[in-house]
Amino acid sequence: MDFTLSPRAEELRAKVAAFMDEYVYPAESVAREQERSLEKPGADPPIVVELRKKAKAQGLWNLFMPDPRYGKGLKNWEYAPICELMGRSPIGARVFNCNAPDTGNMEILAEFGTPEQKERWLKPALEGEIRSCFSMTEPETAGSDPTLLRTRAVRDGDYYVINGHKWFTSGALGAAFAIVMAVTNPDAEPHRRASQIIVPLDTPGVKIVRAVPVMGAVHGGGHCEILYENCRVPVTNLLGKEGDGFAIAQARLGPGRIHHCMRMIGAAERALELMCKRANTRWTHGSYLADKSNVQEWIADSRIEIDASRLMVMYAAWKMDTVGKKEARQEISMIKVLAANTVMRVLDRAIQVHGALGMSDDTPLAFFWRELRGLRLADGPDEVHRMTIARRELAKWK
Amino acid sequence: MDFTLSPRAEELRAKVAAFMDEYVYPAESVAREQERSLEKPGADPPIVVELRKKAKAQGLWNLFMPDPRYGKGLKNWEYAPICELMGRSPIGARVFNCNAPDTGNMEILAEFGTPEQKERWLKPALEGEIRSCFSMTEPETAGSDPTLLRTRAVRDGDYYVINGHKWFTSGALGAAFAIVMAVTNPDAEPHRRASQIIVPLDTPGVKIVRAVPVMGAVHGGGHCEILYENCRVPVTNLLGKEGDGFAIAQARLGPGRIHHCMRMIGAAERALELMCKRANTRWTHGSYLADKSNVQEWIADSRIEIDASRLMVMYAAWKMDTVGKKEARQEISMIKVLAANTVMRVLDRAIQVHGALGMSDDTPLAFFWRELRGLRLADGPDEVHRMTIARRELAKWK
Amino acid sequence: MDFTLSPRAEELRAKVAAFMDEYVYPAESVAREQERSLEKPGADPPIVVELRKKAKAQGLWNLFMPDPRYGKGLKNWEYAPICELMGRSPIGARVFNCNAPDTGNMEILAEFGTPEQKERWLKPALEGEIRSCFSMTEPETAGSDPTLLRTRAVRDGDYYVINGHKWFTSGALGAAFAIVMAVTNPDAEPHRRASQIIVPLDTPGVKIVRAVPVMGAVHGGGHCEILYENCRVPVTNLLGKEGDGFAIAQARLGPGRIHHCMRMIGAAERALELMCKRANTRWTHGSYLADKSNVQEWIADSRIEIDASRLMVMYAAWKMDTVGKKEARQEISMIKVLAANTVMRVLDRAIQVHGALGMSDDTPLAFFWRELRGLRLADGPDEVHRMTIARRELAKWK
Amino acid sequence: MDFTLSPRAEELRAKVAAFMDEYVYPAESVAREQERSLEKPGADPPIVVELRKKAKAQGLWNLFMPDPRYGKGLKNWEYAPICELMGRSPIGARVFNCNAPDTGNMEILAEFGTPEQKERWLKPALEGEIRSCFSMTEPETAGSDPTLLRTRAVRDGDYYVINGHKWFTSGALGAAFAIVMAVTNPDAEPHRRASQIIVPLDTPGVKIVRAVPVMGAVHGGGHCEILYENCRVPVTNLLGKEGDGFAIAQARLGPGRIHHCMRMIGAAERALELMCKRANTRWTHGSYLADKSNVQEWIADSRIEIDASRLMVMYAAWKMDTVGKKEARQEISMIKVLAANTVMRVLDRAIQVHGALGMSDDTPLAFFWRELRGLRLADGPDEVHRMTIARRELAKWK
Repeated sequence: MDFTLSPRAEELRAKVAAFMDEYVYPAESVAREQERSLEKPGADPPIVVELRKKAKAQGLWNLFMPDPRYGKGLKNWEYAPICELMGRSPIGARVFNCNAPDTGNMEILAEFGTPEQKERWLKPALEGEIRSCFSMTEPETAGSDPTLLRTRAVRDGDYYVINGHKWFTSGALGAAFAIVMAVTNPDAEPHRRASQIIVPLDTPGVKIVRAVPVMGAVHGGGHCEILYENCRVPVTNLLGKEGDGFAIAQARLGPGRIHHCMRMIGAAERALELMCKRANTRWTHGSYLADKSNVQEWIADSRIEIDASRLMVMYAAWKMDTVGKKEARQEISMIKVLAANTVMRVLDRAIQVHGALGMSDDTPLAFFWRELRGLRLADGPDEVHRMTIARRELAKWK
Repeated sequence: MDFTLSPRAEELRAKVAAFMDEYVYPAESVAREQERSLEKPGADPPIVVELRKKAKAQGLWNLFMPDPRYGKGLKNWEYAPICELMGRSPIGARVFNCNAPDTGNMEILAEFGTPEQKERWLKPALEGEIRSCFSMTEPETAGSDPTLLRTRAVRDGDYYVINGHKWFTSGALGAAFAIVMAVTNPDAEPHRRASQIIVPLDTPGVKIVRAVPVMGAVHGGGHCEILYENCRVPVTNLLGKEGDGFAIAQARLGPGRIHHCMRMIGAAERALELMCKRANTRWTHGSYLADKSNVQEWIADSRIEIDASRLMVMYAAWKMDTVGKKEARQEISMIKVLAANTVMRVLDRAIQVHGALGMSDDTPLAFFWRELRGLRLADGPDEVHRMTIARRELAKWK
Repeated sequence: MDFTLSPRAEELRAKVAAFMDEYVYPAESVAREQERSLEKPGADPPIVVELRKKAKAQGLWNLFMPDPRYGKGLKNWEYAPICELMGRSPIGARVFNCNAPDTGNMEILAEFGTPEQKERWLKPALEGEIRSCFSMTEPETAGSDPTLLRTRAVRDGDYYVINGHKWFTSGALGAAFAIVMAVTNPDAEPHRRASQIIVPLDTPGVKIVRAVPVMGAVHGGGHCEILYENCRVPVTNLLGKEGDGFAIAQARLGPGRIHHCMRMIGAAERALELMCKRANTRWTHGSYLADKSNVQEWIADSRIEIDASRLMVMYAAWKMDTVGKKEARQEISMIKVLAANTVMRVLDRAIQVHGALGMSDDTPLAFFWRELRGLRLADGPDEVHRMTIARRELAKWK
Repeated sequence: MDFTLSPRAEELRAKVAAFMDEYVYPAESVAREQERSLEKPGADPPIVVELRKKAKAQGLWNLFMPDPRYGKGLKNWEYAPICELMGRSPIGARVFNCNAPDTGNMEILAEFGTPEQKERWLKPALEGEIRSCFSMTEPETAGSDPTLLRTRAVRDGDYYVINGHKWFTSGALGAAFAIVMAVTNPDAEPHRRASQIIVPLDTPGVKIVRAVPVMGAVHGGGHCEILYENCRVPVTNLLGKEGDGFAIAQARLGPGRIHHCMRMIGAAERALELMCKRANTRWTHGSYLADKSNVQEWIADSRIEIDASRLMVMYAAWKMDTVGKKEARQEISMIKVLAANTVMRVLDRAIQVHGALGMSDDTPLAFFWRELRGLRLADGPDEVHRMTIARRELAKWK
């Protein structure tokens, strides 16, 4: 048993931490201001563009990518604590080209893409020249139950003709392509019906209906509602084989959940830091908040819950790295539920300690509180994960 | 013991309910759209202006006002269930001229104002011609501890000269006047130091620094940061006597908390309704959500918590109406904590049942979830109320 | 709307309160000691026998009974606050002959019994000369799902022959008779299959297998496992008509739940009182516990939850009294869940404030904590009540 | 990073697991029965005596002892998962001579004892020939605040004369000696005032007032109230030096908390297993409990919380083993709070799934639920640990 990090991970973590301190945190409020006046939907605020260049120049780029041909080749458990640092800031992941859903798209392109697909889509994404999106969720059906998927891709010669209605296609504004989940084989067994197909967003028939306002706002590339109306894309845009859609989605989700969870832990750490600083300096009713036992309990519980969540994620990452994504399914489901709930509890306490300031956008707390709530729903709601966790547990005792 | 409503309250409740159904709910999305393109900050969206006229014409106006000279003269316990209905919609209270902080300002003007003050400020507010704000919270001090108040009003001949820094002065954009809490008697005992003074917002020296972005947005008149720099207002603008500031604030808070609480209960009822409708129609993993026992538990717990909260508020209102605000202090503190936490729990469940839709602004859930979080902080955070509740309880056994 | 109690209820409440102070609380530790050395299983400790005489002599007897022919004829909402007082002590209800399951048995005998049944069973129970038990729960089937009931009563001439396996027949040790729930009409629709039959416990074939040790102990008449093996009882022992079993059980449960809930609220009040007294006097880490904000929050939350629970129970009782048990079903389900969870939360906090003392039997806290946990299961577990509450709520929106 | 166990720990774990399956679980109900009729207070039930011989013969003995001179010399992180197994049964730890407070006493005797003390007290304790107790808690003072300690030991020639009032001296009935915490140097700085002194329980002046009934029962050696009245013990009975009392107590607590926590995790695992088995076989309202989503959520949350707690304990043990007890203080405080709350939540759910059976003593659930509640108080209540955790966290940001 050994809980220490590898030297290379420690070194990169230190570099990213220094970069965050020097460039990222000070840029947060500037980015927020700039975002309000962006002319091109989905574009990065200028300061983020600039920081991306800096990060790339320092080699702090694509650190998420486990395939050494395309990045540093860090194991998931090595990248995890670095990912946590990025999660401490609303703009962190984007600065280091480690933002969802691009990370997942790059991973599956690296793992399942043809040389041509890699050349055309993976390479510029790795370079940070294009953004992408992942088009799976549909408004009419529950996304966590894949047997309900309605979008269809019908083979027509060398083309697929895609028809469907998606929403919460995150990041579509300004993206170069979407990876679209569509039913290609309706008569196959449920988990072999769908395929993933690369759809350039300038394909005729792709209609971005709107960036759905989420929690009062549209950020970055938005969470878009999209109609695919007779979109024709060449069959060479198929990822993997026909019917591989769910398998690829699963492969994608493993590391993706580690990333999400570690970023949430980073946000929680940031919130705890802010909570402590505020408690140390805010005086009311005869003492500092730091001296009041209820605030102390919030801080202690936050520390406990964050540390427990982190250990769980590190363990899931380590297990995924050592015995494989499939064997680590239970752990990956568990961290999804745990981290998403932990961060909301910590944020709630941090807001309370900040009083009115906590409701304002003068700290990142209110932003995290709006944005991260969605992670109890995205990539499978808590309830579906709990169902699958329980079924595996129950099966042990049947 | 009798839990029935009075006939006049029943009648008004039915009218307001019908008005909500016919006009208010259908206007919500229109108002949301219109708000985005308002030219004048703090103005009402045109559809709200229109509905206000309709409501006034139907006599559904100023129902909150217990003084029969200025309204229907409903008791707090009679108005409470009507107020609940208004709380079901983000625009409800405003449509019926029952929105905070105007309600509280009108109440204290009615109770403590001079005839001149009533003529100049109360009358147009009752008519709905002007809006107002209440300027108490300061960024540097904890608002729940009144001994820390820093804003000063110094007597200079027939004028007060006010200097101070406030924020979260809700509704200041577009308002005609603020009621400002300021220290007039710094050497008096702590609760006799402050006074409430009417300050027209066009007074030289009033600088609205910004509408603080709260949960990502500025709505209506904003939660404003204001600098009062050598503002001179005539001494006749004093409300009550010098040193009455806290006493008037207390008088104001009693009914205000009943209103806040009942509106939150209304929002919770709306959320429960939406949750049930969604659960009845959303199919996943082999059944409707309505048939899953975890969703059933959320619905049952929501029903229990809402009903318990409502009974507590009704009891507090009844006690306030029968034995007075002071005697009902414990109950009023209790409902503040209870209702503000209840509504957040119900909203959290409702969002979860809605999935991605719950995060979007296509329902009022995400709006309520952002806006109502602040009510665990406004008018005294949970923690301060719990402290005072506990002290009263502990004192029984000393 | 009026939250005041009736004068007669106020008067009886004052009398019972005085009796509790003067006789019951001081007797608790004596009764606990005496219980350890009782020779006859199921008997009352001598001090309880004595207090029962006193209570009866003062007319504080059978106050639960709404039928004025057999008691004071208090409405449920009038009895409720008196019942709360009794619940403050582990021996309270028994002292006033208001203990379950005798209360429920007396009620249904009064409502459904023949004159002969009343003479033979009700009268001595009202006099406090005999005890009784209710034999419904079976070890092999879920009691909350009545369609699963297995115990059979087969008509044989003028007799029913009963065979079945029951447990958690509370109070059977020392009881004179059981009311047994048994299937008499297996081919009827589910809710018309069972009947309730009076079975004297000296009937041949009644075998009390054991008083099941519950939470480490057997108290009073025990929670007994009973085999009914070819028990023959005359058909005149049938309560009501064949097939009425579930209907009578429902009729019984309404008031029974009010009683249970109010007693739990009484226990919660006792716990809150003890918690405050302890907090006022226990010094640690530089202050009294009463001055620590976490303890204050426990006290405040306990006060809020208790008051909310009581209002809910009072409302359910009032509704049951005014529009009937059937119309009040939703409210009765809700209070069952609410009160049973409230009391456990309050007890948990009170134990924590008491430290090691809270774990000991030197206070009633540890006793309540063991005994009342069962009320989240008895008379339908939380989960079944939540299911029915949710179904009614969902039905509104279908 | 590596989460695998060492081969020797794996091997011992497998042996202990097999021993539990073959001997311990089947003996539980026998031991429970035998305990009721034990003649000598504090003695082991005959079946436990027998199993202890078996375990000793198999070398499954004193596995907790990190000092290789006295045991297997397992690191804390190696022993932890073995300790978990023992915690699965109420009699587990005792069978393997790994029960508190003997383990802690043996550890400090091994670390701080003189050769004579080791010969006289440690050796027979390791052999399992005697039992011991630890006498620190006092009824009048908060044990978590050591500055309040009242028991005095006054030097008188070659003797200490001890006077004091203790309670919750666990295991005193039948024990050979107590290690007593007493003030020897009242004028020293607070944490240097007390010493630990070995007091044979047959010393004149030691009066075991009573085994305090805890949660309705007295188990094993009881939680005893003891008066020390002019007890004279030779100064050679001092452990370490005068004034070392708190330092030794701290040294003792580190491993002790690991043990407590892992046993609680074992109890939680047992509860989860029972919950799953019950859910898989109990049918109600149209399905097995295992198919109901609320039960699934309890199971999933239990699995998550148990695994997170275990990782935290393993990490704390590993840190204690690699950088020392002092450096691991924060982690040790955190696991104390986390594990003690986790096990209670899991037990509560397991009881609920079992219905009436869960309240009975036919499963170990109700026993665990009564006994383990105390671990949120013992060795420092949750609140004190949270306070110290928070202070360390707050200090980072000052």
